Parts: sequence; structure tokens; C-alpha cells
Amino acid sequence: MSRFLSPEALRCDPYTPGEQPRDQQYIKLNTNESPFPPSPRVLEALSRAEAEKLYLYSDPTCAALNAAIAKRCGLAPENVISGNGSDEILAFAFRAFCGEGRPAAFADITYGFYEAQAALFGLEAKRVPLREDFSLSVEDYLDFPGTVFIANPNAPTGMTVPVDHIRRLLEKDPGRVVIVDEAYVDFGAESCVPLVRKYENLLVTQTMSKSRSLAGGRVGFALGDPELIADLNRVKYSFNPYNVNRLSLLAGAAAMEDEDYFQSCCRSVQENRAWTVEALEKRGFTVLPSSANFVFAGKGPISGGELYRKLKENGVLVRWFDKDRIRDFCRITIGSKEQMETLVERIDRLLAEG
Amino acid sequence: MSRFLSPEALRCDPYTPGEQPRDQQYIKLNTNESPFPPSPRVLEALSRAEAEKLYLYSDPTCAALNAAIAKRCGLAPENVISGNGSDEILAFAFRAFCGEGRPAAFADITYGFYEAQAALFGLEAKRVPLREDFSLSVEDYLDFPGTVFIANPNAPTGMTVPVDHIRRLLEKDPGRVVIVDEAYVDFGAESCVPLVRKYENLLVTQTMSKSRSLAGGRVGFALGDPELIADLNRVKYSFNPYNVNRLSLLAGAAAMEDEDYFQSCCRSVQENRAWTVEALEKRGFTVLPSSANFVFAGKGPISGGELYRKLKENGVLVRWFDKDRIRDFCRITIGSKEQMETLVERIDRLLAEG
Repeated sequence: MSRFLSPEALRCDPYTPGEQPRDQQYIKLNTNESPFPPSPRVLEALSRAEAEKLYLYSDPTCAALNAAIAKRCGLAPENVISGNGSDEILAFAFRAFCGEGRPAAFADITYGFYEAQAALFGLEAKRVPLREDFSLSVEDYLDFPGTVFIANPNAPTGMTVPVDHIRRLLEKDPGRVVIVDEAYVDFGAESCVPLVRKYENLLVTQTMSKSRSLAGGRVGFALGDPELIADLNRVKYSFNPYNVNRLSLLAGAAAMEDEDYFQSCCRSVQENRAWTVEALEKRGFTVLPSSANFVFAGKGPISGGELYRKLKENGVLVRWFDKDRIRDFCRITIGSKEQMETLVERIDRLLAEG
Repeated sequence: MSRFLSPEALRCDPYTPGEQPRDQQYIKLNTNESPFPPSPRVLEALSRAEAEKLYLYSDPTCAALNAAIAKRCGLAPENVISGNGSDEILAFAFRAFCGEGRPAAFADITYGFYEAQAALFGLEAKRVPLREDFSLSVEDYLDFPGTVFIANPNAPTGMTVPVDHIRRLLEKDPGRVVIVDEAYVDFGAESCVPLVRKYENLLVTQTMSKSRSLAGGRVGFALGDPELIADLNRVKYSFNPYNVNRLSLLAGAAAMEDEDYFQSCCRSVQENRAWTVEALEKRGFTVLPSSANFVFAGKGPISGGELYRKLKENGVLVRWFDKDRIRDFCRITIGSKEQMETLVERIDRLLAEG
């Protein structure tokens, strides 16, 4: 770091994205991407004619994209804000709803980005331990006098909090915002989106990076009461008014409109997940109950760190967090059936080698 | 705003982007876009094969894009960080180099975004008045104990600060970062990029939105000492590691590599600017000396606000700021020759109507 770094930036705790090595062809099961290309409608939307218009700014209000999202979610465009990935939307939420006298709370084991973003804005943050079995108890948050961030399903565990529990949290203190990060909700968890109309203090964030095969397009969004959305727009217009580029606006809307393709991708991931869980359990690994497009597996015949390293040597990338409580687990993205078969075959090879 | 808005976000002063009306076909001379489509190489780079890869995350290090930028600028990739437009890069710079005990300084009349971003991070900001003739005196900043932001050429005036003056500022206090925002530099101003190797405390930001016809692609970058760049990356990885999407990475690199097209676009804008300045002056408007792809014209036979409104009624959008000192001016983007001829023809019509 330079001698010019501000004390605030010094306290930042940057997030480490999953590795993207270029030295070899890996089977990448480490960043929870979809194994499927984007919908054919997305490819159609990204025409040469549209590329020719890149000399013009994108619509800062993201009107067409927000309308497509609203329609799919049964809400109004005023309930929607879109962002350059849901990471950006989460950052806006930290700025909009946390600050002096309003700390943030999130689980000790969850998406590592919450920690990074809270530090970015110099926020007070409380890390609330998950239970021994990695489930989240809303009891622990009921009396928290600040803004609550819950990833549901959680990462890297894949485990869910029942929507009824979120409802209790919302009702216990209507003066507090609850942000439910549903990046992985489409793979089998119950969504809080139907609660948006009822609770003024609920913000739901989602992403098109996983279930809609647009990780590289960077499209995320949040759903909430129009006033919450207006607050987020206040931050957006102070940060980067043209935050979503022209092609991503088009890609996002097209992805949102292709319901059949979306359903079919999600179904495949769920089938492959069931197959993978069975295979891993059969080989002695504990697999946490996952509703996401990844599984968190550990406590098996090979330790977490060892499994990560040996799989990497054998051309398969998974994610390992060298962190208390989860050091013995690996997070494994659910890819195509073929990829999962290769994963299991490589694990069998490792087990045979002893 | 909602009752949940944080005090910090309440103090945010959101930037108002130029209007993007959809009710009529306007000649848009209000957001400083290029009148030319992106380079043919950009269109080639945005192939269907690349769109099919959108299910994969973009490279968080932006390696290929940074390499293309570094090559064009005669620097190393370690001197470069890319962003989702230079607005994002500027926000990173405010966070990285301003904070407790390190206020920001910028001109009273300059890019309105500095004000918004300083507020976003709760920074102390000093607004330093431009001289009566709208020129910037570096004398006013020499003893400022904080981080200095200078748009060069400045917006909305189009006027420049000589690079030698920036050099004085850099040398007067090597413990202070000077950020030179060169969004418009390619249209005839001298760049500070050659100083990057010499001064550890210089950061130069540029954008591909103007001279490289990629406003809708959102690609900006900063050039500086590797340690300054590392600081900005610290902020980026706390905010949005995958900040530039896959297609923009490709578009940006392709745009950077097509030197001939770039030069030809810049030349056309300069020619059209000279023509427009002459036409406006002939009609009694004062036009500030512009090195940008816009001119700031006023004090003519029609007041600034009136000119803006009447041109809008006549299908031409220009930008008007209802703000002290510049209320009698309009900022007019330099478009194609045809667009500028239409502008002048509409002004003549207004003058004839009296």
C-alpha cells in the first residue's frame, strides 16, 4: 500500500474472489457459475445493431430492465433497482441503511463480501455465530438494533432460513431493515419476494450470475418498498448513475423473459446436485443440506485443504476457506452432469491413492 | 426517502445525469457522447462466441484490458486499473485517498460528481473558486493539506490547466495525491500521463466514453504509480471485484488498439468544434476556449436558460446548469458536422423569431 492510503481504506478488508488460473484447462467448480450458456434470447438481444449504439450512454434509470424484472416478480418497476452485479447493490444497501448509530449484523460464516463492504464504509458490524450445525437462528437477531443481512440460502453452506423466520424478524422491529440476499434462491429455496408488498422494511437482493447464466454480464437487482428503492437510487446517483451498461441492460431483460430456459437450467442443477450429494455421502463426506448451486462437503476421508489441493493438481478447482469452523469443508459448485462425474472420478482416484 | 435512510446517505447529494427523454427524436448534444459508432474492431470483438461465454465471470484483474491500455499509454500493466466507467474509478479514489484528516479539494465549477462522491463517503470537501474568467489557478491549491481533484480539461468550461502547473502542484507537496481527471483530454489538451512514471503522487483518470465511443460500454481507467493502483484495487475488491463485465473488457481493449479510428474521431470533433465556435461567436455568444468535445457558450442574444428551453422545443438538447456564475451559459456537445449545422440553423431560427 502507498503512504497516501486513507485510514478508512486501510481498514478495508478486500474480498478474495475464487481463483481464475490461466495456466491450464480446469474444471471450474469454485465460483458458482452456471454450467449453461445464457438463454438464446440473450444472444439474440446482443445484436451487432445494439453494439453499434455503444457510443450512447445506457439508460441510467434501467427502465426496460427493471420493467422485465418487475413483471417476472409480480411487482411494479418502482419496487426494483438494478446494479452492476448484486455486489454493487449490496454496497448501496450498506451505505443507504447503515451508518452512525445503525450497525450491521450478519452471520460469522456467510458471504465474505459483507465484511468487506461494511469496512469500506467504516461501519460497525456484528458477526453473529451460526449454530453448531451451521443453521441460522433468527432469535439471535430479534433484538439487534441495526440492519440485518441474511444470505438465504447462505454461502458457503447452502442452508436456508425458513421464510416464516424472516417474517418474525421483520415484524419484531419494523424500524429496522432486513436485507435478504437471495443470490442462490432459484435452486430450491423459498423466496421472500412475495413479502415485499407487505413489509416496508424488507429488501431482497438477487443476481443473474447464477440461475440466469450471466455472471460475466454483471446484472443484479433488489426488490423492496418504493421508498427503500428510492434510498438506494440516492446512493447510486452519488456513486455511478450509469451503473449498468447498455448490453447488460439488454441481456438482463432477455434473460428475465425466458422462463422456460431458466426453469430448465435450475432443474438440471438440482438433479446434478442430488446426484453429487449421494456420491459424496457414499464416499464418507458430510454434505450440508444445500438449496444452492453448490454443496459444502467435508469431514470425509480427506481433509478440506487436502481435498482442495489434490483436486487442483488433478484439474478440478473447488473453493476452500482457511477459516475457523469450516476449514475441513470445500465448497463445490454444481456444474454439468459430466463435470460432476469427473469430480467424483477424480475423488475416487485420490481415495484409491490413499 | 424512507425512515431507514442512514444520516450519511441523507447527506449524499446525488448527481443529475443529462436528460434522456424518450418522447421525441432529439439531437442529443447534452451528455458529451461521441457522434461516431465504436471502432469496427469493437464490433468484431463482441462476437456471438463471446456472448455465449457470459455464464462465466469476467476477469477481476482486467488483465487483457489493462495490458492494452498500458501499451497505448507507454506504461506497465501495474500502472493501470480499469473500472465500470471513470465515475467508478473516481469513487474508488475518493475512498482510497481521502478521509479523516485528509479532505478533498476541487473547483467550485467542475464535474458535479466530485461533490456527490465526497458526500457519499462523508468527506470534508473544499470548493475552490475558479478565477473570474473560469481559469483554474494552481496557486489556490499549493498549500491545501489534502487530496486535489482537477478536471483537465475542466467541465463544463472545456478549459485547461497547463501541465507545468500540475507539475508544480505535485512537487510542492509530495505527500499529497493529485488526481487529474482527463475525461476530455483527447480532444486537444496536453495529458499528464507522461508524468506518471516520475511522480508517485499523481493519478490520472481517463474514460472511453468520449473519444473512444464507448459511453454505453462503461469503461474507464486510472494510471498511476503501482502503489496508488494497489490502493485503488484494495477499494475495488472491497466494493465489487468483478467490476468490469466480460463484453466491456473486450470492447475496451479493442477500442484501445484501434489508434487510426481513434485519431480520426478526435480530429473530426476538433474540426466541428472550430466550426461551431466560429458560428456561435458570429452570432454574439461568448464561447470559452475549449479543448473538450463540448463548448460552453453564453452571454449571447438569448440567455442560457432560454436557449436551453427553446432549443429543446426545437428538437435539440443541450445542457444548462441553473447555478451561480454559469447560469447564462449552455454546455453544447460537439456532434457530427450535420448535427452542428442543425444546431446553428435552429439558433438562427430563434434569433429571427426574436
